[in-house]
Amino acid sequence: MKKIVVIGGSAAGAKAAAKARRLDYQAEITVIQKDPDLSMAACGYPYYIGGVFNDRNMLLATPAGVVRDAQFFSKVKNIKALTETEAVGIDRAGRTVRVRDLKTAKEESLDYDRLIIATGARARPLAIPGTDLDGVCNLLSMADADYLRKMRDGKKVKQAVVIGGGLIGVETCEALVRSGIAVTLLEMTPHILPFLDQQLAMLVENHMRSRKVQVLIDCKVDAILGEKGKVTGIRLADASLLSCDLVVVAVGVIPNSQLAQAAGIALGETGGVMVNAFMQTSDPDIYAAGDCVEVENLITGRKVLAPMGDLANLQGRVAGENAVSGNAVTFKGVVQTGICKVFDFAAGLTGLSEKAAHRAGIGGFETIISAGADKPGFMGANMLVSKILVEKKSLRILGYQCVGSGDVSRQLATAAMAVQGKITLDDLCCADLPYAPPFSPAIDPFIVSAHIMQNKLKGRIRTISAAEVLAMTKTDNPPFLLDGRGPDEYEQLRLGIGEKYIPLGALRAKLSELPQDKEQAIICFCKISMRGYEAALILEANGWKNVRVLEGGIAAWPYPRAK
Amino acid sequence: MKKIVVIGGSAAGAKAAAKARRLDYQAEITVIQKDPDLSMAACGYPYYIGGVFNDRNMLLATPAGVVRDAQFFSKVKNIKALTETEAVGIDRAGRTVRVRDLKTAKEESLDYDRLIIATGARARPLAIPGTDLDGVCNLLSMADADYLRKMRDGKKVKQAVVIGGGLIGVETCEALVRSGIAVTLLEMTPHILPFLDQQLAMLVENHMRSRKVQVLIDCKVDAILGEKGKVTGIRLADASLLSCDLVVVAVGVIPNSQLAQAAGIALGETGGVMVNAFMQTSDPDIYAAGDCVEVENLITGRKVLAPMGDLANLQGRVAGENAVSGNAVTFKGVVQTGICKVFDFAAGLTGLSEKAAHRAGIGGFETIISAGADKPGFMGANMLVSKILVEKKSLRILGYQCVGSGDVSRQLATAAMAVQGKITLDDLCCADLPYAPPFSPAIDPFIVSAHIMQNKLKGRIRTISAAEVLAMTKTDNPPFLLDGRGPDEYEQLRLGIGEKYIPLGALRAKLSELPQDKEQAIICFCKISMRGYEAALILEANGWKNVRVLEGGIAAWPYPRAK
Repeated sequence: MKKIVVIGGSAAGAKAAAKARRLDYQAEITVIQKDPDLSMAACGYPYYIGGVFNDRNMLLATPAGVVRDAQFFSKVKNIKALTETEAVGIDRAGRTVRVRDLKTAKEESLDYDRLIIATGARARPLAIPGTDLDGVCNLLSMADADYLRKMRDGKKVKQAVVIGGGLIGVETCEALVRSGIAVTLLEMTPHILPFLDQQLAMLVENHMRSRKVQVLIDCKVDAILGEKGKVTGIRLADASLLSCDLVVVAVGVIPNSQLAQAAGIALGETGGVMVNAFMQTSDPDIYAAGDCVEVENLITGRKVLAPMGDLANLQGRVAGENAVSGNAVTFKGVVQTGICKVFDFAAGLTGLSEKAAHRAGIGGFETIISAGADKPGFMGANMLVSKILVEKKSLRILGYQCVGSGDVSRQLATAAMAVQGKITLDDLCCADLPYAPPFSPAIDPFIVSAHIMQNKLKGRIRTISAAEVLAMTKTDNPPFLLDGRGPDEYEQLRLGIGEKYIPLGALRAKLSELPQDKEQAIICFCKISMRGYEAALILEANGWKNVRVLEGGIAAWPYPRAK
Repeated sequence: MKKIVVIGGSAAGAKAAAKARRLDYQAEITVIQKDPDLSMAACGYPYYIGGVFNDRNMLLATPAGVVRDAQFFSKVKNIKALTETEAVGIDRAGRTVRVRDLKTAKEESLDYDRLIIATGARARPLAIPGTDLDGVCNLLSMADADYLRKMRDGKKVKQAVVIGGGLIGVETCEALVRSGIAVTLLEMTPHILPFLDQQLAMLVENHMRSRKVQVLIDCKVDAILGEKGKVTGIRLADASLLSCDLVVVAVGVIPNSQLAQAAGIALGETGGVMVNAFMQTSDPDIYAAGDCVEVENLITGRKVLAPMGDLANLQGRVAGENAVSGNAVTFKGVVQTGICKVFDFAAGLTGLSEKAAHRAGIGGFETIISAGADKPGFMGANMLVSKILVEKKSLRILGYQCVGSGDVSRQLATAAMAVQGKITLDDLCCADLPYAPPFSPAIDPFIVSAHIMQNKLKGRIRTISAAEVLAMTKTDNPPFLLDGRGPDEYEQLRLGIGEKYIPLGALRAKLSELPQDKEQAIICFCKISMRGYEAALILEANGWKNVRVLEGGIAAWPYPRAK
């Protein structure tokens, strides 16, 4: 009878144990869990804190509503789950794990034939004073979720600061605003959601500001301040002060790989446990899965940390199977897909951002930012802004980002599969996606971005980014800016950066109103730059030599507008 | 100056003309349109009829709200659009198109250098008496939409019959129910939505019935009956009568290829205009696109008709570009993706159904029906039922169907890209899709179906379909049916076909309550057959030899239930 010990009982560990059980009825399977709870839906914490639902047990329950506690694991899965128990050492030679009962401090050793390490990740420490004050927490554990939910229910917190504008930081902001708390978000880098490129992230920042979150970027925290052990505020590096009665630190996670390292198991450069495609560590009897491991990025070939709940489950399944069946199945790697809800927006990425491509030393690609509706107007369309990254030589789609109030989820799921399937731009231009008006426009926005990219690569459209346009308007020789929309649209919404508006339909008759110097830089745009593109073609056909189209038009403009 | 004539001004034709214009500023581009309107969003007709929106112009307008009439085409696109004008003949030798002004009956000839045929499709005629009665219509043209909208607004129609349960028939039912009209849907084949396999289609039928649509299958219409020229009812082949004051015939479309055929342009076996990947007909100067052409199914290699609005646009773009630039871009074919909204359900397919695979002579595949939630329970999950088709040798995903109240659109879009990207089952089992609780469960339902398929192909799970189970219960030797859910669930919902319920957690202790003949057929299930699978593993480990799992569990059960 095989003995399998799993260290960790959240996503990867619980899944590995369950999978092992399904493949080996006889095995003795033990899960060691430091926390009191098991199988927590950690990605759901922000929605519990924000009051999207109020029954804490829903975070722990099966779809049928049964709480997955130790008794459930025993009765339903025939798995022994030791909660509030910590694995303190692995003796690889003796094939035992030393565990300590945190309630009694008693220790014992558990034999194993196969060990699965699923120790997860912990909060990256923030090396500033004040992190130990009352009212300062992370949002990683169920205890954190319980604490923040208590803050919500207590209704005493008025002003919170969230440090870190990543996925969890942004989700926390929404949860706190939903709880009636005024929120300031502090992000150290030039924009929130650092996995996105700047322009799309700025659109999310704008949306958060519209929902009353104060978003501060390029913002370093010097200290968390307190009185009588309780947090009272934040001091920034520029010496300015923010008063608050709650601080959530969400500056990322680092893999819990110390236990593995102490046992002589190899770690990778990222600090995560090194595993092969079988999720097997440097010790063939020991597997690892979830946030504690590093995995291969399938596009760059580099090892990365990808601490995501879905991947933890998929890796746990592979580790669990291989631990009982020998190395039978593989987890080859990730393309690094992520999504988050931000109030009425969603935002996400699959594959490489432009920034990530540069960081990985990948060149020879082209990008385009495009905007468009997620449905026909008559079905109540919502806007999407996307950025696609294509390798010029192979025409392979390397990455896709999408933000907006529209159906970002479908866009990203489609793109994730396109990236993983090594779909080329030409095939994407003619992709056969599910179309009906309740679900998408006749040409899906992902395909539209491919069409624009095809035009760009063929030299038919010369585009310019919002940042470049803004910079040009501030020079002594600003470009001529042409807004091709109609008068009603112009009345409702406009950039106000010196543009002239000439509706596209009137343009051929009004060419005399344009700069007669055919070398003059002209930037064309409209709401999404479709009419801007057509305007540019008209101007080029009439001899203007230096015409460009603003990528994504007004919809993708991240800077303040006049209207 | 190149002369380009486009016959047809709806989806494919309008797109081809616009694309040609963008690539050739000088060309003389003329669009011949039989209807009074241009660029109609035909897929939106059911939503206009049903009152989802009330402004007819929204069907004709750009996203910015400008109606795309002949003046718009002239001013904005510099395209001459001749509406209410019919192309009556093509002289290929002389490179002219003979056109007739339907208002004046005047004819003229238009020269062309390149011709694009985008004549669309027409209603398949129904060879029964009474189709010319007042109150009988199709839903294909804007005139049909106007007529049905008038019926809605007139509020006099009480009882409608829709003949044909395809996409348009089903969407029409919803539109009419939304208009306060009692609706009967007649489908000649054994189930509605014939592109789906039976079980999933039946789940949609059940949903329609729950929304008060009377759905009759295997139902042949003998005649449409009338009095004084007005429809009064339907006589079925079994002589039964249905009274009604409106009949919508939606028995499919056939390509409008007569004009091409009369000019000696080759048609394919399907009756559609034959084109190569450049959308070029047998005459190199003539291109064709949209519902009038046949295209290649990329999975079977066979020519098929795929009359879908999104494909018409994509093909039109290719035809328009190649007509002006020479053969530069291709439309390689389709995987035949379709989706429709049906009240609170959506339903669709990408790739091959089991039926289509058999029809194409493709064997060596396996299928699995699975059910699951589209989100975690705490986010307000909705159910999805899916069917995946995988080629056993290559492990390539050949098809995916999905129906239910959940986010079918994301599922199908993801699967469509997986089919087109030739993703294998093993890669799908570890796919990196966008996960966050507002958008999907930790393991996406599409991936779950891959996991179950992997287990099935490895012989770990032996499944049985609902149809087989139902048939077995009617034999003299019915199987032992084991429902593994809890008492509350059993109280709320149950099949009631003789099953015994033993909650999974109690099963190990209650093995004595099972048939002690280890050869006895046992069928295990639960809500989605996840616990059913675990129950089967327990029974097999305890010596039962003939245990199977009901695919998709109660959620996918299409037959009447006790509760």
